[in-house]
Amino acid sequence: MTDTITISVDAMGGDNAPRAVIHGASLALREHQNTRFIFHGRQEQITPLLDEFPELKAASTVRHSEVVIAMDEKPSQALRKGKGTSSMWMTIQAVKDKEADVAISGGNTGALMAMSTFCLRPMAGISRPGIAAIWPTLRSNIIVLDVGATIGADAQQLVDYAILGSALARCLFDDDAPTVGLLNVGTEEVKGLDYIREAGKILTDASGHGFTYHGFVEGDDIGKGTVDVVVTEGFVGNIALKTAEGTARQVGTYLRNALNSNLMSKIGAVFAISALKALRRRMDPRTVNGGVFMGLNGIVIKSHGGTDEIGYKSALNLSYEMARSKLIDKIGETMTRFPIKAALPVIEDEPEAKPA
Amino acid sequence: MTDTITISVDAMGGDNAPRAVIHGASLALREHQNTRFIFHGRQEQITPLLDEFPELKAASTVRHSEVVIAMDEKPSQALRKGKGTSSMWMTIQAVKDKEADVAISGGNTGALMAMSTFCLRPMAGISRPGIAAIWPTLRSNIIVLDVGATIGADAQQLVDYAILGSALARCLFDDDAPTVGLLNVGTEEVKGLDYIREAGKILTDASGHGFTYHGFVEGDDIGKGTVDVVVTEGFVGNIALKTAEGTARQVGTYLRNALNSNLMSKIGAVFAISALKALRRRMDPRTVNGGVFMGLNGIVIKSHGGTDEIGYKSALNLSYEMARSKLIDKIGETMTRFPIKAALPVIEDEPEAKPA
Repeated sequence: MTDTITISVDAMGGDNAPRAVIHGASLALREHQNTRFIFHGRQEQITPLLDEFPELKAASTVRHSEVVIAMDEKPSQALRKGKGTSSMWMTIQAVKDKEADVAISGGNTGALMAMSTFCLRPMAGISRPGIAAIWPTLRSNIIVLDVGATIGADAQQLVDYAILGSALARCLFDDDAPTVGLLNVGTEEVKGLDYIREAGKILTDASGHGFTYHGFVEGDDIGKGTVDVVVTEGFVGNIALKTAEGTARQVGTYLRNALNSNLMSKIGAVFAISALKALRRRMDPRTVNGGVFMGLNGIVIKSHGGTDEIGYKSALNLSYEMARSKLIDKIGETMTRFPIKAALPVIEDEPEAKPA
Repeated sequence: MTDTITISVDAMGGDNAPRAVIHGASLALREHQNTRFIFHGRQEQITPLLDEFPELKAASTVRHSEVVIAMDEKPSQALRKGKGTSSMWMTIQAVKDKEADVAISGGNTGALMAMSTFCLRPMAGISRPGIAAIWPTLRSNIIVLDVGATIGADAQQLVDYAILGSALARCLFDDDAPTVGLLNVGTEEVKGLDYIREAGKILTDASGHGFTYHGFVEGDDIGKGTVDVVVTEGFVGNIALKTAEGTARQVGTYLRNALNSNLMSKIGAVFAISALKALRRRMDPRTVNGGVFMGLNGIVIKSHGGTDEIGYKSALNLSYEMARSKLIDKIGETMTRFPIKAALPVIEDEPEAKPA
């Protein structure tokens, strides 16, 4: 693989921008030397930083933008203010204009989703976009979506998420028939909400066409890695993701406190230092960073806003991988395999901003 | 406090019943000698077990019941089969008849909720019952409800959960104005679903009457212990609870694997043994066992079905505490302080079984 991958980067997105973004890109470039970057944002801030990383500078273009979307702006506000001009919009526009293979921003999630939807528009046959999280489990990484692009869902949207998630799993895990589960409160057929049951019926019929439908899964199946793709409505997915993050931090704190609790435990920690360091790396949220916006005519990756250069490197590596494995083509392929979708007329939805 | 507390126990509920139930009761009796037990179930199985625990036997009565509700029975089925005759029903009936102060079962959650609602009926002013979980956090234990009694909620139900949760917090934490948060996907006022925003407005107006309204909280605020009471709809609450359980198990497994990964880490674990044991106790799900059914004319506690005698002891201790602190009175009191509720006419809802 020697094709060049071009990543369009919102240099102004996130709490530690643009320094963490540029530094992260220099680290990502070392891992994939066939990467080119287009940085969008305030030239006077970006250029001096690029001077610190000459190799990166040689692989980069800077596009000046004065307008920066704030982290607390409402999506509708952000669209009014930043459409066409903001670093965030320009980052996405470069994908639309085929100048870049993938876009990435650590900025305001709601604004990024609204702009991405408005600029790239939903794929034919997909009614609304979803955000997919890569979730580390006891078995391997899995995919959970939607983790908050849209609040509320119907059966058809869950089915769309299953298609999108399967395509992503095919890209990431090199598995041609990933398993898909619907998140529910019980594994018996009788339980749960009507729209989830309805989606379960559609997926049962379609199982075998690009994915294997496993059935309902519960909250604790996520951490077990029971399936490759967990499909859920965005509100529930967001709560699950943040609850898991909170629990992981909580247990991590318990462990630190325990190892600091007495002299013997401190000595023990010294002996176990390499194992504990490996554990820390494993639980480091920076190593798995990046939500994938799914279902649009282009790939957009959302990095955590509060992360540092290590986190940006991970999100940039994910962006690279999404472009390299041709996620958009894989989604199209999965869709043509899917009986209902294959028969669907091409529908172009009006772009919708998140409710403000 | 020397008043006797009488606990009505479904001896047949759960995977390890009746042995784990009886054994657990003998452990609980040691901690609270003023407890009396009424065991419901198959006499021929219960009596020989009680013979093993003479002290418990002296504090117990056995009520024979032939009918046992299976773990996989649908609530509607269970009600038809077990109303009036099953060990589960009789356990609840003893509370209704004022023979016992509190009921406990490790059986089928849906069936237990349906029977409890049917037998005890919702309290005046509360439309539907909720299940409250006691959730360990970095700060202290907190309360999360509803974790799955009802799927779907409206603003009024969330407000009811806030009242019920506050009353429970007043019982458990001895805090006269516990803080209450509404689980949402963002902390800004603009985000989330309409019914949650609507509940937020009602709680803002009522704040200070038996609780302090904190505002919206996100999934990771649960583990931080940001508020004393987290209020959410039952589907979301159940997913959050199980996702957290799954994550805690996952991190625990990572830690075990890390400490077993090489000789030095194994030596370290030996040094840190007492700290690691304390950590294990802290993360032991058996030490915090028991969902509290809230909003009925009587207290019912649901134990995990798969637990052992240690888990039953915890759930029985929780039952004891709920009876001792007079939870039902505290709920009534909290309700009379609440402006809207105090003005409400007494409404008696038709009892509803969970949708089958």
